[in-house]
Amino acid sequence: MVLLDGKFISEKIKEEIKIEVQNIKNRGGRTPHLAAVLVGNDGASLTYVGSKVRSCEKVGFESTLIHLDENISEDNLISEINKLNDNDQIDGYIVQLPLPKHINEEKILMMVNPKKDVDGFHPFNFGKMAQNMDSFIPATPQGIIELIDRYDIDTEGKNTVVIGRSNIVGRPISILMSNKSKPGNSTVTLVHSRTPDIPSFTKKADIIIVALGIPNFLKSDMIKQGSVVIDVGITRVADKTKNKGYRIVGDVDFESVKTKVSYITPVPGGVGPMTIAMLLKNTLKARINN
Amino acid sequence: MVLLDGKFISEKIKEEIKIEVQNIKNRGGRTPHLAAVLVGNDGASLTYVGSKVRSCEKVGFESTLIHLDENISEDNLISEINKLNDNDQIDGYIVQLPLPKHINEEKILMMVNPKKDVDGFHPFNFGKMAQNMDSFIPATPQGIIELIDRYDIDTEGKNTVVIGRSNIVGRPISILMSNKSKPGNSTVTLVHSRTPDIPSFTKKADIIIVALGIPNFLKSDMIKQGSVVIDVGITRVADKTKNKGYRIVGDVDFESVKTKVSYITPVPGGVGPMTIAMLLKNTLKARINN
Repeated sequence: MVLLDGKFISEKIKEEIKIEVQNIKNRGGRTPHLAAVLVGNDGASLTYVGSKVRSCEKVGFESTLIHLDENISEDNLISEINKLNDNDQIDGYIVQLPLPKHINEEKILMMVNPKKDVDGFHPFNFGKMAQNMDSFIPATPQGIIELIDRYDIDTEGKNTVVIGRSNIVGRPISILMSNKSKPGNSTVTLVHSRTPDIPSFTKKADIIIVALGIPNFLKSDMIKQGSVVIDVGITRVADKTKNKGYRIVGDVDFESVKTKVSYITPVPGGVGPMTIAMLLKNTLKARINN
Repeated sequence: MVLLDGKFISEKIKEEIKIEVQNIKNRGGRTPHLAAVLVGNDGASLTYVGSKVRSCEKVGFESTLIHLDENISEDNLISEINKLNDNDQIDGYIVQLPLPKHINEEKILMMVNPKKDVDGFHPFNFGKMAQNMDSFIPATPQGIIELIDRYDIDTEGKNTVVIGRSNIVGRPISILMSNKSKPGNSTVTLVHSRTPDIPSFTKKADIIIVALGIPNFLKSDMIKQGSVVIDVGITRVADKTKNKGYRIVGDVDFESVKTKVSYITPVPGGVGPMTIAMLLKNTLKARINN
Protein backbone atom coordinates (compact mmCIF):
# COMPACT_ATOMS: atom_id res chain seq x y z
CA MET A 1 0.00 0.00 0.00
CA VAL A 2 1.26 3.44 -0.98
CA LEU A 3 0.10 6.58 0.81
CA LEU A 4 -0.79 9.37 -1.59
CA ASP A 5 1.03 12.07 0.33
CA GLY A 6 -0.85 15.23 -0.57
CA LYS A 7 1.05 17.22 2.00
CA PHE A 8 4.41 16.34 0.45
CA ILE A 9 3.27 16.80 -3.15
CA SER A 10 1.54 20.08 -2.38
CA GLU A 11 4.75 21.41 -0.79
CA LYS A 12 6.61 20.41 -3.93
CA ILE A 13 4.05 22.23 -6.11
CA LYS A 14 4.28 25.29 -3.91
CA GLU A 15 8.05 25.26 -4.37
CA GLU A 16 7.55 25.11 -8.15
CA ILE A 17 5.10 28.02 -7.97
CA LYS A 18 7.49 29.99 -5.77
CA ILE A 19 10.21 29.66 -8.41
CA GLU A 20 7.83 30.80 -11.15
CA VAL A 21 6.78 33.79 -9.07
CA GLN A 22 10.44 34.67 -8.50
CA ASN A 23 11.01 34.47 -12.27
CA ILE A 24 8.12 36.86 -12.90
CA LYS A 25 9.52 39.28 -10.34
CA ASN A 26 13.06 38.97 -11.74
CA ARG A 27 11.71 39.92 -15.14
CA GLY A 28 10.20 43.03 -13.53
CA GLY A 29 6.67 41.64 -13.68
CA ARG A 30 3.89 42.32 -11.25
CA THR A 31 3.48 39.92 -8.33
CA PRO A 32 0.46 37.56 -8.63
CA HIS A 33 -2.32 38.73 -6.35
CA LEU A 34 -5.16 36.64 -4.91
CA ALA A 35 -8.09 38.13 -3.02
CA ALA A 36 -10.48 36.24 -0.78
CA VAL A 37 -13.96 37.42 0.12
CA LEU A 38 -15.22 36.16 3.47
CA VAL A 39 -18.70 37.03 4.71
CA GLY A 40 -19.38 36.47 8.39
CA ASN A 41 -17.48 34.50 11.02
CA ASP A 42 -18.08 30.81 10.39
CA GLY A 43 -15.28 28.93 12.16
CA ALA A 44 -14.38 26.52 9.37
CA SER A 45 -14.51 29.29 6.75
CA LEU A 46 -12.18 31.46 8.85
CA THR A 47 -9.74 28.55 9.07
CA TYR A 48 -9.84 27.81 5.33
CA VAL A 49 -9.47 31.42 4.26
CA GLY A 50 -6.69 32.00 6.77
CA SER A 51 -4.80 29.01 5.45
CA LYS A 52 -5.27 30.19 1.83
CA VAL A 53 -3.89 33.63 2.70
CA ARG A 54 -0.89 32.13 4.51
CA SER A 55 -0.16 29.90 1.52
CA CYS A 56 -0.11 32.96 -0.73
CA GLU A 57 2.59 34.50 1.42
CA LYS A 58 4.59 31.28 1.31
CA VAL A 59 4.82 31.25 -2.50
CA GLY A 60 5.41 35.00 -2.80
CA PHE A 61 1.91 36.07 -3.91
CA GLU A 62 0.26 39.19 -2.70
CA SER A 63 -3.04 38.52 -0.98
CA THR A 64 -5.97 40.56 0.22
CA LEU A 65 -8.62 39.37 2.63
CA ILE A 66 -11.92 41.17 2.28
CA HIS A 67 -13.78 40.31 5.46
CA LEU A 68 -17.37 41.50 5.35
CA ASP A 69 -20.07 41.69 7.97
CA GLU A 70 -22.47 38.75 8.16
CA ASN A 71 -25.40 41.12 7.61
CA ILE A 72 -24.08 42.72 4.43
CA SER A 73 -26.82 43.16 1.82
CA GLU A 74 -26.66 41.26 -1.45
CA ASP A 75 -26.33 44.54 -3.35
CA ASN A 76 -23.36 45.66 -1.26
CA LEU A 77 -21.69 42.28 -1.71
CA ILE A 78 -22.22 42.58 -5.47
CA SER A 79 -20.56 46.00 -5.46
CA GLU A 80 -17.57 44.46 -3.62
CA ILE A 81 -17.42 41.78 -6.34
CA ASN A 82 -17.56 44.43 -9.05
CA LYS A 83 -14.67 46.29 -7.42
CA LEU A 84 -12.60 43.12 -7.62
CA ASN A 85 -13.60 42.60 -11.25
CA ASP A 86 -12.48 46.16 -12.06
CA ASN A 87 -9.26 46.10 -10.04
CA ASP A 88 -6.48 45.20 -12.48
CA GLN A 89 -4.05 44.65 -9.63
CA ILE A 90 -5.97 41.54 -8.62
CA ASP A 91 -5.48 38.47 -10.80
CA GLY A 92 -7.99 36.19 -9.18
CA TYR A 93 -10.28 35.93 -6.21
CA ILE A 94 -12.47 33.50 -4.37
CA VAL A 95 -15.75 33.96 -2.57
CA GLN A 96 -15.60 31.63 0.43
CA LEU A 97 -18.70 29.45 0.66
CA PRO A 98 -21.17 29.01 2.26
CA LEU A 99 -22.59 32.53 2.14
CA PRO A 100 -25.23 33.63 4.68
CA LYS A 101 -28.76 32.45 3.89
CA HIS A 102 -30.10 35.87 2.86
CA ILE A 103 -27.64 35.97 -0.04
CA ASN A 104 -28.24 34.12 -3.33
CA GLU A 105 -25.01 32.14 -3.75
CA GLU A 106 -25.69 31.29 -7.39
CA LYS A 107 -26.26 34.95 -8.25
CA ILE A 108 -23.01 36.00 -6.56
CA LEU A 109 -20.91 33.32 -8.27
CA MET A 110 -22.35 34.41 -11.62
CA MET A 111 -20.99 37.93 -10.98
CA VAL A 112 -17.39 36.73 -10.76
CA ASN A 113 -15.44 37.64 -13.90
CA PRO A 114 -14.59 34.22 -15.42
CA LYS A 115 -11.03 35.45 -16.03
CA LYS A 116 -10.58 35.94 -12.28
CA ASP A 117 -12.61 32.87 -11.27
CA VAL A 118 -9.75 30.86 -9.74
CA ASP A 119 -12.26 28.62 -7.95
CA GLY A 120 -13.63 27.56 -11.33
CA PHE A 121 -17.22 27.72 -10.09
CA HIS A 122 -18.56 30.09 -12.78
CA PRO A 123 -20.69 28.19 -15.33
CA PHE A 124 -18.51 29.50 -18.16
CA ASN A 125 -15.43 27.81 -16.69
CA PHE A 126 -17.41 24.76 -15.61
CA GLY A 127 -18.76 24.35 -19.13
CA LYS A 128 -15.31 24.70 -20.69
CA MET A 129 -14.05 22.00 -18.34
CA ALA A 130 -16.98 19.73 -19.27
CA GLN A 131 -16.22 20.33 -22.97
CA ASN A 132 -12.54 19.49 -22.38
CA MET A 133 -11.36 23.03 -23.15
CA ASP A 134 -8.70 24.95 -21.25
CA SER A 135 -10.28 26.62 -18.19
CA PHE A 136 -9.99 27.20 -14.46
CA ILE A 137 -10.77 23.83 -12.89
CA PRO A 138 -12.18 23.75 -9.34
CA ALA A 139 -9.34 23.23 -6.90
CA THR A 140 -10.38 19.98 -5.23
CA PRO A 141 -10.98 17.87 -8.36
CA GLN A 142 -7.91 19.42 -9.95
CA GLY A 143 -5.92 18.44 -6.85
CA ILE A 144 -7.10 14.85 -7.20
CA ILE A 145 -6.05 14.76 -10.86
CA GLU A 146 -2.66 16.25 -9.98
CA LEU A 147 -2.11 13.74 -7.18
CA ILE A 148 -2.95 10.83 -9.51
CA ASP A 149 -0.62 12.31 -12.11
CA ARG A 150 2.33 12.83 -9.76
CA TYR A 151 2.08 9.22 -8.55
CA ASP A 152 1.76 8.10 -12.16
CA ILE A 153 -1.36 6.06 -11.50
CA ASP A 154 -2.78 4.63 -14.71
CA THR A 155 -6.39 5.70 -15.23
CA GLU A 156 -6.94 4.88 -18.91
CA GLY A 157 -9.66 2.27 -19.38
CA LYS A 158 -9.94 1.80 -15.62
CA ASN A 159 -13.25 1.41 -13.89
CA THR A 160 -13.62 4.54 -11.75
CA VAL A 161 -16.46 5.10 -9.29
CA VAL A 162 -17.14 8.59 -7.94
CA ILE A 163 -19.37 8.77 -4.85
CA GLY A 164 -21.27 12.05 -4.53
CA ARG A 165 -22.47 14.47 -7.21
CA SER A 166 -21.74 17.92 -5.75
CA ASN A 167 -20.84 20.78 -8.08
CA ILE A 168 -17.62 21.30 -6.12
CA VAL A 169 -16.16 17.78 -6.24
CA GLY A 170 -18.22 14.82 -7.44
CA ARG A 171 -19.62 16.20 -10.68
CA PRO A 172 -16.36 17.83 -11.89
CA ILE A 173 -14.10 14.91 -10.96
CA SER A 174 -16.49 12.51 -12.71
CA ILE A 175 -16.10 14.61 -15.86
CA LEU A 176 -12.33 15.04 -15.59
CA MET A 177 -11.72 11.32 -15.03
CA SER A 178 -13.66 10.42 -18.16
CA ASN A 179 -12.40 13.21 -20.43
CA LYS A 180 -10.05 12.31 -23.28
CA SER A 181 -6.92 13.28 -21.35
CA LYS A 182 -4.16 11.95 -19.13
CA PRO A 183 -5.02 11.38 -16.33
CA GLY A 184 -8.49 10.63 -17.61
CA ASN A 185 -9.93 8.19 -20.16
CA SER A 186 -11.52 6.22 -17.32
CA THR A 187 -14.92 4.59 -17.49
CA VAL A 188 -16.66 6.59 -14.79
CA THR A 189 -19.75 5.72 -12.80
CA LEU A 190 -21.19 8.52 -10.68
CA VAL A 191 -23.09 7.14 -7.70
CA HIS A 192 -25.04 9.28 -5.24
CA SER A 193 -27.76 9.45 -2.61
CA ARG A 194 -30.35 7.90 -4.95
CA THR A 195 -28.19 4.91 -5.90
CA PRO A 196 -29.85 1.92 -4.22
CA ASP A 197 -26.79 -0.35 -4.02
CA ILE A 198 -23.52 1.61 -3.90
CA PRO A 199 -21.35 -1.42 -2.95
CA SER A 200 -22.37 -3.21 -6.16
CA PHE A 201 -20.43 -0.48 -7.99
CA THR A 202 -17.53 0.13 -5.61
CA LYS A 203 -16.75 -3.60 -5.37
CA LYS A 204 -15.83 -3.63 -9.06
CA ALA A 205 -13.97 -0.31 -9.11
CA ASP A 206 -10.27 0.06 -9.85
CA ILE A 207 -10.38 3.64 -8.57
CA ILE A 208 -12.82 5.02 -5.98
CA ILE A 209 -13.20 8.72 -5.22
CA VAL A 210 -15.40 9.41 -2.21
CA ALA A 211 -16.87 12.88 -1.74
CA LEU A 212 -19.97 12.36 0.35
CA GLY A 213 -19.16 14.01 3.67
CA ILE A 214 -20.17 10.92 5.67
CA PRO A 215 -17.38 9.89 8.07
CA ASN A 216 -16.04 6.35 7.54
CA PHE A 217 -18.60 5.61 4.83
CA LEU A 218 -16.37 3.41 2.66
CA LYS A 219 -15.62 0.10 4.41
CA SER A 220 -13.28 -2.72 3.55
CA ASP A 221 -16.05 -5.03 2.33
CA MET A 222 -17.13 -2.44 -0.25
CA ILE A 223 -13.87 -2.49 -2.23
CA LYS A 224 -11.84 -4.98 -4.19
CA GLN A 225 -8.24 -5.95 -3.53
CA GLY A 226 -5.69 -3.54 -5.01
CA SER A 227 -7.99 -0.61 -5.69
CA VAL A 228 -7.00 3.05 -5.50
CA VAL A 229 -8.97 5.03 -2.91
CA ILE A 230 -9.18 8.83 -2.85
CA ASP A 231 -10.86 10.32 0.20
CA VAL A 232 -12.27 13.82 -0.17
CA GLY A 233 -14.17 13.85 3.15
CA ILE A 234 -13.20 16.41 5.78
CA THR A 235 -15.85 16.20 8.49
CA ARG A 236 -15.05 17.81 11.85
CA VAL A 237 -15.76 15.43 14.72
CA ALA A 238 -15.67 16.63 18.33
CA ASP A 239 -12.52 15.35 20.07
CA LYS A 240 -11.54 16.64 23.51
CA THR A 241 -8.03 15.16 23.21
CA LYS A 242 -7.24 17.69 20.44
CA ASN A 243 -6.24 21.30 21.10
CA LYS A 244 -8.84 22.57 18.66
CA GLY A 245 -11.56 20.43 20.26
CA TYR A 246 -12.12 18.44 17.07
CA ARG A 247 -10.41 16.16 14.59
CA ILE A 248 -10.87 15.84 10.82
CA VAL A 249 -12.41 12.54 9.70
CA GLY A 250 -12.57 11.32 6.10
CA ASP A 251 -15.27 9.41 4.21
CA VAL A 252 -13.10 6.29 4.20
CA ASP A 253 -12.75 3.87 7.09
CA PHE A 254 -8.99 4.11 6.68
CA GLU A 255 -7.96 1.47 9.20
CA SER A 256 -10.14 -1.26 7.70
CA VAL A 257 -9.44 -0.33 4.10
CA LYS A 258 -5.70 0.31 4.16
CA THR A 259 -4.56 -3.31 3.93
CA LYS A 260 -6.67 -3.93 0.83
CA VAL A 261 -5.75 -0.94 -1.35
CA SER A 262 -2.82 -0.26 -3.66
CA TYR A 263 -2.93 3.52 -3.10
CA ILE A 264 -4.85 5.60 -0.59
CA THR A 265 -5.01 9.23 0.53
CA PRO A 266 -4.75 9.88 4.25
CA VAL A 267 -7.10 12.37 5.97
CA PRO A 268 -5.76 14.86 6.86
CA GLY A 269 -2.77 15.24 4.55
CA GLY A 270 -4.25 13.87 1.34
CA VAL A 271 -6.61 15.81 -0.90
CA GLY A 272 -6.92 18.77 1.51
CA PRO A 273 -3.45 20.30 1.01
CA MET A 274 -3.68 19.65 -2.74
CA THR A 275 -6.76 21.85 -2.89
CA ILE A 276 -4.90 24.91 -1.66
CA ALA A 277 -1.95 24.20 -3.96
CA MET A 278 -4.33 24.12 -6.94
CA LEU A 279 -5.89 27.42 -5.90
CA LEU A 280 -2.39 28.92 -6.01
CA LYS A 281 -1.76 27.27 -9.38
CA ASN A 282 -4.97 28.77 -10.75
CA THR A 283 -3.96 32.19 -9.46
CA LEU A 284 -0.59 31.92 -11.19
CA LYS A 285 -2.42 30.89 -14.36
CA ALA A 286 -4.70 33.95 -14.05
CA ARG A 287 -1.62 36.15 -13.62
CA ILE A 288 0.06 34.66 -16.69
CA ASN A 289 -3.12 34.96 -18.80
CA ASN A 290 -3.47 38.62 -17.81
CA MET B 1 -41.94 -4.08 -26.12
CA VAL B 2 -43.04 -0.47 -26.53
CA LEU B 3 -41.74 1.69 -29.37
CA LEU B 4 -40.69 5.15 -28.21
CA ASP B 5 -42.37 6.99 -31.03
CA GLY B 6 -40.33 10.16 -31.38
CA LYS B 7 -42.14 11.11 -34.54
CA PHE B 8 -45.53 11.06 -32.82
CA ILE B 9 -44.33 12.80 -29.64
CA SER B 10 -42.45 15.45 -31.58
CA GLU B 11 -45.59 16.24 -33.60
CA LYS B 12 -47.47 16.60 -30.34
CA ILE B 13 -44.81 18.97 -28.98
CA LYS B 14 -44.89 20.98 -32.19
CA GLU B 15 -48.67 21.32 -31.79
CA GLU B 16 -48.13 22.60 -28.23
CA ILE B 17 -45.55 25.10 -29.47
CA LYS B 18 -47.84 26.21 -32.29
CA ILE B 19 -50.55 27.04 -29.75
CA GLU B 20 -48.09 29.02 -27.63
CA VAL B 21 -46.92 30.94 -30.69
CA GLN B 22 -50.52 31.71 -31.57
CA ASN B 23 -51.07 32.99 -28.02
CA ILE B 24 -48.06 35.29 -28.32
CA LYS B 25 -49.33 36.62 -31.62
CA ASN B 26 -52.86 37.05 -30.25
CA ARG B 27 -51.45 39.18 -27.44
CA GLY B 28 -49.80 41.33 -30.11
CA GLY B 29 -46.36 39.92 -29.39
CA ARG B 30 -43.56 39.49 -31.88
CA THR B 31 -43.31 36.13 -33.66
CA PRO B 32 -40.42 33.90 -32.46
CA HIS B 33 -37.60 33.97 -34.99
CA LEU B 34 -34.89 31.37 -35.50
CA ALA B 35 -31.90 31.89 -37.77
CA ALA B 36 -29.63 29.15 -39.10
CA VAL B 37 -26.10 29.73 -40.35
CA LEU B 38 -24.94 27.23 -42.94
CA VAL B 39 -21.43 27.39 -44.40
CA GLY B 40 -20.82 25.42 -47.57
CA ASN B 41 -22.84 22.70 -49.26
CA ASP B 42 -22.42 19.51 -47.25
CA GLY B 43 -25.32 17.23 -48.20
CA ALA B 44 -26.30 16.11 -44.71
CA SER B 45 -26.01 19.67 -43.36
CA LEU B 46 -28.26 20.98 -46.15
CA THR B 47 -30.84 18.33 -45.27
CA TYR B 48 -30.73 19.07 -41.53
CA VAL B 49 -30.92 22.82 -41.93
CA GLY B 50 -33.70 22.54 -44.50
CA SER B 51 -35.70 20.38 -42.16
CA LYS B 52 -35.15 22.82 -39.26
CA VAL B 53 -36.37 25.73 -41.39
CA ARG B 54 -39.46 23.81 -42.53
CA SER B 55 -40.27 22.93 -38.92
CA CYS B 56 -40.15 26.62 -38.02
CA GLU B 57 -42.80 27.36 -40.61
CA LYS B 58 -44.95 24.53 -39.29
CA VAL B 59 -45.15 25.98 -35.77
CA GLY B 60 -45.53 29.57 -36.93
CA PHE B 61 -41.98 30.81 -36.28
CA GLU B 62 -40.18 33.16 -38.57
CA SER B 63 -36.93 31.71 -39.86
CA THR B 64 -33.93 32.99 -41.72
CA LEU B 65 -31.36 30.84 -43.47
CA ILE B 66 -27.97 32.48 -43.80
CA HIS B 67 -26.20 30.38 -46.40
CA LEU B 68 -22.54 31.35 -46.70
CA ASP B 69 -19.86 30.38 -49.16
CA GLU B 70 -17.62 27.47 -48.18
CA ASN B 71 -14.57 29.72 -48.54
CA ILE B 72 -15.78 32.48 -46.23
CA SER B 73 -13.00 33.74 -43.96
CA GLU B 74 -13.20 33.23 -40.21
CA ASP B 75 -13.36 37.01 -39.71
CA ASN B 76 -16.29 37.38 -42.08
CA LEU B 77 -18.12 34.52 -40.40
CA ILE B 78 -17.54 36.21 -37.04
CA SER B 79 -19.02 39.43 -38.37
CA GLU B 80 -22.09 37.47 -39.52
CA ILE B 81 -22.36 36.05 -36.00
CA ASN B 82 -22.07 39.50 -34.50
CA LYS B 83 -24.86 40.76 -36.73
CA LEU B 84 -27.09 38.00 -35.38
CA ASN B 85 -26.10 38.86 -31.81
CA ASP B 86 -27.02 42.51 -32.41
CA ASN B 87 -30.26 41.85 -34.30
CA ASP B 88 -33.04 42.08 -31.72
CA GLN B 89 -35.54 40.63 -34.19
CA ILE B 90 -33.79 37.27 -33.92
CA ASP B 91 -34.43 35.30 -30.73
CA GLY B 92 -32.06 32.44 -31.33
CA TYR B 93 -29.80 30.95 -33.95
CA ILE B 94 -27.75 27.89 -34.71
CA VAL B 95 -24.47 27.47 -36.52
CA GLN B 96 -24.77 24.19 -38.41
CA LEU B 97 -21.78 21.91 -37.75
CA PRO B 98 -19.34 20.79 -39.02
CA LEU B 99 -17.74 24.01 -40.26
CA PRO B 100 -15.09 23.93 -43.00
CA LYS B 101 -11.62 22.95 -41.77
CA HIS B 102 -10.09 26.44 -42.10
CA ILE B 103 -12.50 27.77 -39.48
CA ASN B 104 -11.99 27.28 -35.74
CA GLU B 105 -15.30 25.78 -34.64
CA GLU B 106 -14.63 26.33 -30.95
CA LYS B 107 -13.88 30.01 -31.53
CA ILE B 108 -17.09 30.50 -33.51
CA LEU B 109 -19.30 28.77 -30.94
CA MET B 110 -17.78 30.99 -28.23
CA MET B 111 -18.95 34.07 -30.18
CA VAL B 112 -22.61 33.07 -29.97
CA ASN B 113 -24.49 35.20 -27.45
CA PRO B 114 -25.49 32.66 -24.74
CA LYS B 115 -28.98 34.21 -24.67
CA LYS B 116 -29.45 33.25 -28.33
CA ASP B 117 -27.59 29.93 -28.08
CA VAL B 118 -30.56 27.65 -28.78
CA ASP B 119 -28.17 24.76 -29.53
CA GLY B 120 -26.82 25.00 -25.97
CA PHE B 121 -23.23 24.49 -27.17
CA HIS B 122 -21.76 27.63 -25.57
CA PRO B 123 -19.71 26.74 -22.47
CA PHE B 124 -21.79 29.14 -20.38
CA ASN B 125 -24.97 27.18 -21.11
CA PHE B 126 -23.16 23.85 -20.93
CA GLY B 127 -21.79 24.75 -17.49
CA LYS B 128 -25.20 25.84 -16.22
CA MET B 129 -26.63 22.54 -17.39
CA ALA B 130 -23.81 20.63 -15.62
CA GLN B 131 -24.49 22.63 -12.45
CA ASN B 132 -28.21 21.82 -12.74
CA MET B 133 -29.21 25.43 -13.37
CA ASP B 134 -31.77 26.62 -15.89
CA SER B 135 -30.16 26.92 -19.34
CA PHE B 136 -30.45 26.05 -23.00
CA ILE B 137 -29.86 22.30 -23.17
CA PRO B 138 -28.50 20.79 -26.40
CA ALA B 139 -31.39 19.53 -28.48
CA THR B 140 -30.53 15.84 -28.79
CA PRO B 141 -30.00 15.05 -25.09
CA GLN B 142 -32.97 17.24 -24.23
CA GLY B 143 -35.04 15.27 -26.74
CA ILE B 144 -34.04 12.02 -25.04
CA ILE B 145 -35.07 13.40 -21.63
CA GLU B 146 -38.37 14.61 -23.06
CA LEU B 147 -39.09 11.24 -24.68
CA ILE B 148 -38.37 9.41 -21.42
CA ASP B 149 -40.59 11.89 -19.61
CA ARG B 150 -43.54 11.60 -22.01
CA TYR B 151 -43.49 7.81 -21.76
CA ASP B 152 -43.19 8.14 -17.99
CA ILE B 153 -40.18 5.83 -17.80
CA ASP B 154 -38.82 5.67 -14.26
CA THR B 155 -35.14 6.68 -14.14
CA GLU B 156 -34.60 7.29 -10.43
CA GLY B 157 -32.02 4.93 -8.95
CA LYS B 158 -31.80 3.05 -12.25
CA ASN B 159 -28.52 1.85 -13.66
CA THR B 160 -28.01 3.91 -16.83
CA VAL B 161 -25.17 3.35 -19.30
CA VAL B 162 -24.33 6.02 -21.86
CA ILE B 163 -22.13 4.90 -24.76
CA GLY B 164 -20.06 7.70 -26.30
CA ARG B 165 -18.72 10.90 -24.72
CA SER B 166 -19.29 13.56 -27.38
CA ASN B 167 -20.02 17.14 -26.33
CA ILE B 168 -23.22 17.04 -28.37
CA VAL B 169 -24.84 13.91 -26.95
CA GLY B 170 -22.92 11.53 -24.68
CA ARG B 171 -21.46 13.97 -22.18
CA PRO B 172 -24.60 16.09 -21.74
CA ILE B 173 -27.03 13.15 -21.51
CA SER B 174 -24.73 11.48 -18.94
CA ILE B 175 -24.99 14.65 -16.85
CA LEU B 176 -28.73 15.13 -17.30
CA MET B 177 -29.54 11.52 -16.41
CA SER B 178 -27.60 11.78 -13.14
CA ASN B 179 -28.71 15.28 -12.13
CA LYS B 180 -31.08 15.66 -9.20
CA SER B 181 -34.16 15.98 -11.38
CA LYS B 182 -37.03 14.04 -12.94
CA PRO B 183 -36.21 12.40 -15.32
CA GLY B 184 -32.76 12.02 -13.79
CA ASN B 185 -31.43 10.67 -10.49
CA SER B 186 -29.98 7.70 -12.34
CA THR B 187 -26.68 6.07 -11.54
CA VAL B 188 -24.86 6.81 -14.78
CA THR B 189 -21.82 5.08 -16.25
CA LEU B 190 -20.28 6.80 -19.27
CA VAL B 191 -18.47 4.29 -21.48
CA HIS B 192 -16.43 5.24 -24.54
CA SER B 193 -13.74 4.23 -27.00
CA ARG B 194 -11.21 3.58 -24.22
CA THR B 195 -13.51 1.28 -22.24
CA PRO B 196 -12.03 -2.21 -22.63
CA ASP B 197 -15.20 -4.21 -21.98
CA ILE B 198 -18.35 -2.29 -22.87
CA PRO B 199 -20.69 -5.35 -22.63
CA SER B 200 -19.74 -5.83 -18.95
CA PHE B 201 -21.51 -2.50 -18.34
CA THR B 202 -24.40 -2.69 -20.80
CA LYS B 203 -25.38 -6.20 -19.61
CA LYS B 204 -26.25 -4.76 -16.19
CA ALA B 205 -27.94 -1.60 -17.42
CA ASP B 206 -31.61 -0.78 -16.91
CA ILE B 207 -31.33 2.03 -19.46
CA ILE B 208 -28.85 2.19 -22.37
CA ILE B 209 -28.29 5.31 -24.46
CA VAL B 210 -26.07 4.68 -27.50
CA ALA B 211 -24.45 7.63 -29.24
CA LEU B 212 -21.38 6.20 -30.93
CA GLY B 213 -22.13 6.51 -34.64
CA ILE B 214 -21.32 2.84 -35.30
CA PRO B 215 -24.17 1.09 -37.16
CA ASN B 216 -25.70 -1.89 -35.34
CA PHE B 217 -23.15 -1.68 -32.51
CA LEU B 218 -25.48 -2.77 -29.70
CA LYS B 219 -26.40 -6.44 -30.06
CA SER B 220 -28.88 -8.61 -28.22
CA ASP B 221 -26.20 -10.42 -26.18
CA MET B 222 -24.98 -7.09 -24.76
CA ILE B 223 -28.21 -6.22 -22.95
CA LYS B 224 -30.36 -7.68 -20.21
CA GLN B 225 -34.00 -8.63 -20.51
CA GLY B 226 -36.40 -5.71 -20.07
CA SER B 227 -33.95 -2.88 -20.54
CA VAL B 228 -34.77 0.48 -22.12
CA VAL B 229 -32.72 1.21 -25.25
CA ILE B 230 -32.33 4.70 -26.75
CA ASP B 231 -30.59 4.82 -30.12
CA VAL B 232 -28.98 8.13 -31.11
CA GLY B 233 -27.13 6.78 -34.15
CA ILE B 234 -27.99 8.22 -37.57
CA THR B 235 -25.39 6.85 -39.97
CA ARG B 236 -26.12 7.10 -43.70
CA VAL B 237 -25.56 3.78 -45.42
CA ALA B 238 -25.62 3.51 -49.22
CA ASP B 239 -28.84 1.83 -50.37
CA LYS B 240 -29.80 1.75 -54.04
CA THR B 241 -33.36 0.67 -53.24
CA LYS B 242 -34.02 4.10 -51.69
CA ASN B 243 -34.83 7.22 -53.67
CA LYS B 244 -32.13 9.20 -51.87
CA GLY B 245 -29.56 6.48 -52.49
CA TYR B 246 -29.04 5.84 -48.79
CA ARG B 247 -30.86 4.77 -45.66
CA ILE B 248 -30.39 5.88 -42.05
CA VAL B 249 -29.02 3.19 -39.72
CA GLY B 250 -28.89 3.42 -35.93
CA ASP B 251 -26.27 2.24 -33.42
CA VAL B 252 -28.60 -0.53 -32.25
CA ASP B 253 -29.09 -3.84 -34.02
CA PHE B 254 -32.84 -3.27 -33.77
CA GLU B 255 -34.02 -6.63 -35.12
CA SER B 256 -31.97 -8.68 -32.66
CA VAL B 257 -32.58 -6.41 -29.68
CA LYS B 258 -36.29 -5.65 -30.03
CA THR B 259 -37.59 -8.86 -28.45
CA LYS B 260 -35.50 -8.35 -25.31
CA VAL B 261 -36.25 -4.73 -24.44
CA SER B 262 -39.13 -3.05 -22.59
CA TYR B 263 -38.84 0.21 -24.55
CA ILE B 264 -36.82 1.08 -27.65
CA THR B 265 -36.49 4.00 -30.07
CA PRO B 266 -36.75 3.19 -33.78
CA VAL B 267 -34.30 4.69 -36.27
CA PRO B 268 -35.49 6.74 -38.05
CA GLY B 269 -38.44 8.13 -36.11
CA GLY B 270 -37.01 8.00 -32.59
CA VAL B 271 -34.54 10.53 -31.24
CA GLY B 272 -34.11 12.34 -34.58
CA PRO B 273 -37.47 14.12 -34.76
CA MET B 274 -37.26 14.93 -31.04
CA THR B 275 -34.06 16.87 -31.72
CA ILE B 276 -35.78 19.32 -34.04
CA ALA B 277 -38.74 19.68 -31.66
CA MET B 278 -36.33 20.61 -28.86
CA LEU B 279 -34.62 23.20 -31.05
CA LEU B 280 -38.03 24.78 -31.55
CA LYS B 281 -38.72 24.57 -27.82
CA ASN B 282 -35.41 26.34 -27.09
CA THR B 283 -36.26 29.05 -29.60
CA LEU B 284 -39.62 29.62 -27.94
CA LYS B 285 -37.81 29.80 -24.59
CA ALA B 286 -35.40 32.38 -26.02
CA ARG B 287 -38.36 34.41 -27.27
CA ILE B 288 -40.08 34.29 -23.88
CA ASN B 289 -36.86 35.20 -22.03
CA ASN B 290 -36.34 38.19 -24.30
